[in-house]
Amino acid sequence: MAVYTDVTTDDLARFLSGYDIGELLSYKGIAEGVENSNFLVHTSAGNFILTLYEKRVAEADLPFFIALMEHLAARGINCPQPVKNKQGGMLGRVAGRPAAIVTFLDGLWMRRPNASHCAGVGEALAKLHLAGGDFGMQRRNALSIEAWRPLYETARTRGDSVRPGLCADIAAELDVLDTCWPSNLPHGVIHADLFPDNVFFLGDNLSGLIDFYFACTDMLAYDVAICLNAWCFEPDHSYNVTKGRALLKAYARVRALSAAEREALPVLARGAAMRFLLTRLVDWLAVPEGALVKPKDPLEYYRKLRFHQSVRSVADYGFE
Amino acid sequence: MAVYTDVTTDDLARFLSGYDIGELLSYKGIAEGVENSNFLVHTSAGNFILTLYEKRVAEADLPFFIALMEHLAARGINCPQPVKNKQGGMLGRVAGRPAAIVTFLDGLWMRRPNASHCAGVGEALAKLHLAGGDFGMQRRNALSIEAWRPLYETARTRGDSVRPGLCADIAAELDVLDTCWPSNLPHGVIHADLFPDNVFFLGDNLSGLIDFYFACTDMLAYDVAICLNAWCFEPDHSYNVTKGRALLKAYARVRALSAAEREALPVLARGAAMRFLLTRLVDWLAVPEGALVKPKDPLEYYRKLRFHQSVRSVADYGFE
Repeated sequence: MAVYTDVTTDDLARFLSGYDIGELLSYKGIAEGVENSNFLVHTSAGNFILTLYEKRVAEADLPFFIALMEHLAARGINCPQPVKNKQGGMLGRVAGRPAAIVTFLDGLWMRRPNASHCAGVGEALAKLHLAGGDFGMQRRNALSIEAWRPLYETARTRGDSVRPGLCADIAAELDVLDTCWPSNLPHGVIHADLFPDNVFFLGDNLSGLIDFYFACTDMLAYDVAICLNAWCFEPDHSYNVTKGRALLKAYARVRALSAAEREALPVLARGAAMRFLLTRLVDWLAVPEGALVKPKDPLEYYRKLRFHQSVRSVADYGFE
Repeated sequence: MAVYTDVTTDDLARFLSGYDIGELLSYKGIAEGVENSNFLVHTSAGNFILTLYEKRVAEADLPFFIALMEHLAARGINCPQPVKNKQGGMLGRVAGRPAAIVTFLDGLWMRRPNASHCAGVGEALAKLHLAGGDFGMQRRNALSIEAWRPLYETARTRGDSVRPGLCADIAAELDVLDTCWPSNLPHGVIHADLFPDNVFFLGDNLSGLIDFYFACTDMLAYDVAICLNAWCFEPDHSYNVTKGRALLKAYARVRALSAAEREALPVLARGAAMRFLLTRLVDWLAVPEGALVKPKDPLEYYRKLRFHQSVRSVADYGFE
């Protein structure tokens, strides 16, 4: 939960005067998201989200994210739509930070998703991949395999304080991933962070996808692997094959997975687990002892990694 | 900023099924407030605030706060109105915490209030005092003079780490306050925490008062003294006599201050500064070094206290 930059009413009123979205009635910082500062803005024209991009998001990447949301929304993906200002631009500055206004999406994110929600996210992910097919911009995945060794080096000296032997296990796994990581699978725009808190539902229906600030160009099946990690494990970190099957089948009904993609899924899932294990581990070690804000548990992804290491084929994920 | 208790959609849907406020469309934790967890809830009937009362608020006090908001709203004070459930109750439980739904108030709080805003708050405070005149319930002020020595004792061993000599200054001031603290001034319901973030404006007009969770029965003029401290100092902690005059005159136009109240105002202002100095000091010392969440600066109120110690009469506040 986070609002890193405070916004005064004068700042905001000045910024909104460049838009045709009515009169400002209220705004409140939202205690969700860890990368940016988000405000729920109520105007006489309705509800909007104001995002201030903080230092963890590179300003040079913002045009990619904004154009992507516009592109996807125009193709029927229910995602936040950047609002154009009077000059036709979609990026500005508030309180010294780059900022954008996007439409507000109703919907609830599922703290405890069931198999039907997993099917919903599988279907939506495939539709996102198809809708992104003709998106003209590219963005390298800054948190893919090339990034993992440097992240590991950052954590190496103190990593074993989190769990004895952790660093040796990571080092061994990085060697495996270097050898087995696929390269010639279908590429395209991926969300790369489609966790439950980024997917909204109304009743049983998926109503929207948010937070495209890790989106990039990478293997589409890697995005599926990220979702398997994020959606198909129980709170005790055991894999739920019913949820996995629901997610993969729903995905494949919209966009078929090639034989090569299916075969690569276990190693992609290991890589996805490694990515979140490493970033969480670095964050964990960066927070001083006794701090009030607790970062996410890196060992959750260590346990998921261990499961993926035991997988022999995609059938173990519940997918035939 | 704070959301201490996470609420699942199932928790919330179950709770809302007891109310006639339409279908749940979204809810988001709000990054404001330090005592409770607040969520902005959007339903097909509009916007509401869900508050989960955390441990710093005594559950036995909740009926007082809820009844007070209802009483004040019925008398034209624009404050959050507790929503009745289907059984007519206004308190329930969500995620194991006591909880209430209140109406959502539009409006913006002033990060940099000017004299006109100070006049607005003075007028609103006086109206609140009058509207509370026939409120039937009582609540002792748990943070009045009897509480200050125990708070000081909590901070005493490490208080000088914040500023050398701080503890001796506090001890000397507590002696003065014990001697001079008035007792026979008009009592009634006071807000006791009417800081800028608890007062909303739309354009130049005050549009609402929120956060009644320090409200209690105490001297009305003490509430005025709290507002003088909270609204009439500049960021460099210098007193702005124009703002003070605006606040006091606007108050007195609605509810006249007696000669005794005027005379007591400097000592009441010292007491109010002491109350916030002490609670901030205790919070400051309770937070581990290096924590990400920084508590409010206690020395802001030390500097305000020093100003009030120099005041000779209410005229020094700009009030004749």
